Amino acid sequence: MSSVDTQLEELKSEIMAELPSDISVSDVTYEGPELVVYTRDPKRFAKNGDLVRDLAGKLRKRITIRPDPEELASPARAQDQIHDVIPDEAGVTDLDFHHDTGEVVIEAEKPGIVIGRGGETLREITQQVGWTPEVVRTPPIESSTVSNVRNFLKQERDERRDILERVGRQIHREELSDDEWVRISTLGCCREVGRASFVLSTPETRILIDCGDKPGSDDVPYLQAPEALGSGASSVDAVVLTHAHLDHSALLPLLFKYGYDGPIYTTEPTRDLMGLLQLDYLDVAAKEGRTPPYDSSMVRETIKHTIPLEYGDVTDIAPDVKLTFHNAGHILGSAVTHFHIGDGLYNVAFSGDIHYEDTRLFNGAVNDFPRVETLVLESTYGGRDDYQTDQEDSERELIEVINETYDRDGKVVIPAFAVGRSQEIMLVLEEAMRTGEIPQMPVHLDGMIWEATAIHTTYPEYLRDNLRDRIFHDDENPFLAEEFNHIDAGEEERQAVSDGEPCIVLSTSGMITGGPIMSWLQHIGTDPDSRLVFVGYQAQGTLGRRIQDGWDEIPINGDQLGRSETLTLEMDVTTVSGFSGHADRQGLENFVKTMNPRPEKILCVHGDEQSVQDLSSGLYHDYNLRTFAPKNLETFRFL
Amino acid sequence: MSSVDTQLEELKSEIMAELPSDISVSDVTYEGPELVVYTRDPKRFAKNGDLVRDLAGKLRKRITIRPDPEELASPARAQDQIHDVIPDEAGVTDLDFHHDTGEVVIEAEKPGIVIGRGGETLREITQQVGWTPEVVRTPPIESSTVSNVRNFLKQERDERRDILERVGRQIHREELSDDEWVRISTLGCCREVGRASFVLSTPETRILIDCGDKPGSDDVPYLQAPEALGSGASSVDAVVLTHAHLDHSALLPLLFKYGYDGPIYTTEPTRDLMGLLQLDYLDVAAKEGRTPPYDSSMVRETIKHTIPLEYGDVTDIAPDVKLTFHNAGHILGSAVTHFHIGDGLYNVAFSGDIHYEDTRLFNGAVNDFPRVETLVLESTYGGRDDYQTDQEDSERELIEVINETYDRDGKVVIPAFAVGRSQEIMLVLEEAMRTGEIPQMPVHLDGMIWEATAIHTTYPEYLRDNLRDRIFHDDENPFLAEEFNHIDAGEEERQAVSDGEPCIVLSTSGMITGGPIMSWLQHIGTDPDSRLVFVGYQAQGTLGRRIQDGWDEIPINGDQLGRSETLTLEMDVTTVSGFSGHADRQGLENFVKTMNPRPEKILCVHGDEQSVQDLSSGLYHDYNLRTFAPKNLETFRFL
Repeated sequence: MSSVDTQLEELKSEIMAELPSDISVSDVTYEGPELVVYTRDPKRFAKNGDLVRDLAGKLRKRITIRPDPEELASPARAQDQIHDVIPDEAGVTDLDFHHDTGEVVIEAEKPGIVIGRGGETLREITQQVGWTPEVVRTPPIESSTVSNVRNFLKQERDERRDILERVGRQIHREELSDDEWVRISTLGCCREVGRASFVLSTPETRILIDCGDKPGSDDVPYLQAPEALGSGASSVDAVVLTHAHLDHSALLPLLFKYGYDGPIYTTEPTRDLMGLLQLDYLDVAAKEGRTPPYDSSMVRETIKHTIPLEYGDVTDIAPDVKLTFHNAGHILGSAVTHFHIGDGLYNVAFSGDIHYEDTRLFNGAVNDFPRVETLVLESTYGGRDDYQTDQEDSERELIEVINETYDRDGKVVIPAFAVGRSQEIMLVLEEAMRTGEIPQMPVHLDGMIWEATAIHTTYPEYLRDNLRDRIFHDDENPFLAEEFNHIDAGEEERQAVSDGEPCIVLSTSGMITGGPIMSWLQHIGTDPDSRLVFVGYQAQGTLGRRIQDGWDEIPINGDQLGRSETLTLEMDVTTVSGFSGHADRQGLENFVKTMNPRPEKILCVHGDEQSVQDLSSGLYHDYNLRTFAPKNLETFRFL
Repeated sequence: MSSVDTQLEELKSEIMAELPSDISVSDVTYEGPELVVYTRDPKRFAKNGDLVRDLAGKLRKRITIRPDPEELASPARAQDQIHDVIPDEAGVTDLDFHHDTGEVVIEAEKPGIVIGRGGETLREITQQVGWTPEVVRTPPIESSTVSNVRNFLKQERDERRDILERVGRQIHREELSDDEWVRISTLGCCREVGRASFVLSTPETRILIDCGDKPGSDDVPYLQAPEALGSGASSVDAVVLTHAHLDHSALLPLLFKYGYDGPIYTTEPTRDLMGLLQLDYLDVAAKEGRTPPYDSSMVRETIKHTIPLEYGDVTDIAPDVKLTFHNAGHILGSAVTHFHIGDGLYNVAFSGDIHYEDTRLFNGAVNDFPRVETLVLESTYGGRDDYQTDQEDSERELIEVINETYDRDGKVVIPAFAVGRSQEIMLVLEEAMRTGEIPQMPVHLDGMIWEATAIHTTYPEYLRDNLRDRIFHDDENPFLAEEFNHIDAGEEERQAVSDGEPCIVLSTSGMITGGPIMSWLQHIGTDPDSRLVFVGYQAQGTLGRRIQDGWDEIPINGDQLGRSETLTLEMDVTTVSGFSGHADRQGLENFVKTMNPRPEKILCVHGDEQSVQDLSSGLYHDYNLRTFAPKNLETFRFL
């Protein structure tokens, strides 16, 4: 009998001892980080809400109760009963019964109403039908990503259960080593921006944190450094993803090509956004005639192996490691990741990308932890002069620019990243129109912006509290405002918009390196009354940067024959800074200054050479911390 | 055609262009780091000694000339001619013809006479018979290790040539990476003594330096750290061994068990001593009922894959790495290893274990290099108080102790390490008897000491200059002095010695952890007129340390039935310090102070926590160098 089986036997005895003697426990298994308890008395559990909570506290495990199949009402009958229990205003759009686990997935427009106060409606459902309800939100804006991911996971349910069971046994394996140490190996994003990737290792466990790419660099081989995959991808026990941006997520699917078969821990919105961005990554590569390092089947493997966690859930991911995600304020689902190692041995937090102040979309990054000895901190704007304009001022400037352009009958074209900045700008525009600061006019959303927005509205729990509350009320969901138009009919629609009245266009790509923004420049670029407004960082070498720097001759792929034309840009070009998703120097300092507890060591990463050096020496001098500016491919040992 | 084949074709053309047109070149191949040139005119090469030298300088390669087989005299005829050419006083003991390579191995008592001034006798041989002579020394004291190794390599000649050819092509492979960095990963011997092991890596190449064990620690797993073997033992390109002691060499054979199939670079005496010590390691493990991690076939693989280099030879061991060994003064064949990386990119020296002052056996460690940016420095006696007695004083003390004991009719028993300290003490005793400072009396050598001494006399080039010169003259070889007696008849002989006249016994193990010293304690330990003299370091936890600390109850394995007895030690116990093979704190400082050039960075390793910290901060304060006291399993990146 393996040590995990022995452990489960013992847990079963312990659970039976804790429960009233008339509640049966037929089996106890692991599924990922959850302990699953099978019972012939699901209704008894549902009746007494404290039973599970007390058990979880006692065993220090996350516990899921599952009914034995024979205790279940037939789906047909259960369906009626469930509809009876759930108030109509919940807007249930789908019920999906899984006989193997006794779960019923309830998709509803208002999940909160399905759950009920303190979960009372859910418990009532189980008491009635025996099934264990799981609730997901019906996207207020239809999202093909969300529905594709959900359908795919439904389809792969059997395999996914196998994966979860295997991962669960792996997490709860016996510890083998007596050694005690903690190491961080830097694989990428040190003294550079791009290809974020670290390995956190103990004698027992190896965790890969992020696995991004760096456009233009030869970025695949970093995964082949011995620190990355050791004796192969299977030597990694777990992967943790801080957020969906490609410089953090692009090469995750490659792990599965290399033979990785373990879990990916991230938040639910990050899972969906990651799928969207990875597929787009393949798409862009194909369009540019590059061979991408993996194909879409590997993206599906990635999604299949993802175990979503919520902010604040303390989760065992290895015998000696507990992981907790906290809001990072950067993009939807972005997380500061906190690792508690050993039993009180050591604590490491990786900031991922953070925004410390509140924005319209998100609350500011969390910097309050039970313990942290080492912080790995992003430094994108860590340079001594990297102070950004207050967003309030930036918004005022943007509004002015729009009004000016409107007054002369021009159109405003804003290149923007699909995920994050677009939604932030949408909120600014929505408010400005609602309050009359700018005239009502259409805001056209092109590229992946609409889809990314749909994903945002699917997970309002991850948005700033006041925004979340507004989305919960249909009539106040700012993303559903009537001025927003999804460009979904291609060139003809763009032509019509261009020929029409003053309007605002938000289009990808954010740095004008391709995508529908190229069409918009063709349609509107020669109109001197219109205006191109940059609201995001333009990297060196991109067309966006060159236009920002004053270039007005733009290469345009002219026709189907691939002949290239040049367009002379005649529209105004304006940059409105201050909409970054990253903390500026002040924000990074504030994050550290107010951090509770203050860490002993800080590794400054994810910034160009000067930024990490500036931030590292600044934090050292101002707060007397041991700070480092690591290079890629170094290994730091703690303890 | 592979890039190596193309390269060889080009080299062949270049060589033909350089040589007079009437000298043929039939083939050009790599054998390990050597470029082998086959010719039908070996005699022409032999006639003009400058030809090969000029070619080597021009191509910056080590060049070996080999005759085409058809140009060779028959062995029978060649044998006579060779004997005619070589003066009788050379003492030729064996000729061994290898038709596949056209080499004839000449074993002689005086290799210098076979070689002749500037190699003239060797060239004369080739001119006469066409064969390429290679000279080895007939051990002045018969060494089973040396003859076993030589016979084994003769037997495995075919496979060895395959290995060398493969290694040669590997060394000269095309460089694939554009990146430029140098990393050192610490696997063992950081903040501890034992399990010396490092990986030096570049984007192109991974070199394992030393691969020792640490008795009493769970030392095999360190090779399983991803930094050690990466994606398997085959990810290591080359192994470099600084010296034969088991804390540097014990686990080399394990690499072959794990699938390593590449070269081991070390000196010739280190190869032989390493074989001796590894086999003894297996033997001791078996006697103590432990399962050793590998068996003797793996020791043979290790020897088969060894490519011996001489001090000062600059050798390509990878497309981007040149290795040079320099005398380290620690034990026979011990080397400071210098790596030149890239074309002037970076230089790293590993001290290995060093003795900076001259000893009787060896010249002091070399610290003069063309360039060094980083030095990895042993710190065994790096502590602030680790100053040793001058050896002169120690010798005087030892002589006094011996005279005192002799005067009261007692015997002196010296536990000593077989390799190094024993021979140093032998030289002290030989001189003291020769000069009359102590009376003439037998010195009995027990355990592996005799065999280790035989290996020393086989390689006098590696000994201190004046000692080497004495060995070249049979009648002055101090190791052949008549007082030295090899205990080779077991217990009976030991009993007879114990019952006899005053004498000196040198016996392993050096820390009284087993071996024949246990018998000597049984025979002589109860004699209050005799004396036990420690001349080497006694580690914590060893019986030697306990006796040194005053214990006099010694567990002895009593009889064949395994009953254990206790012996009450009544002999005097004396410690004479100052015979260490390691530089003391002053020696380490002097090594750095006089080092040319002064390195930029020093990693202090191979010492207990306090020693490395003391040395690191001492060198930082006194010489303003960037110093580090790494932990195991860290990775430092340079550049």
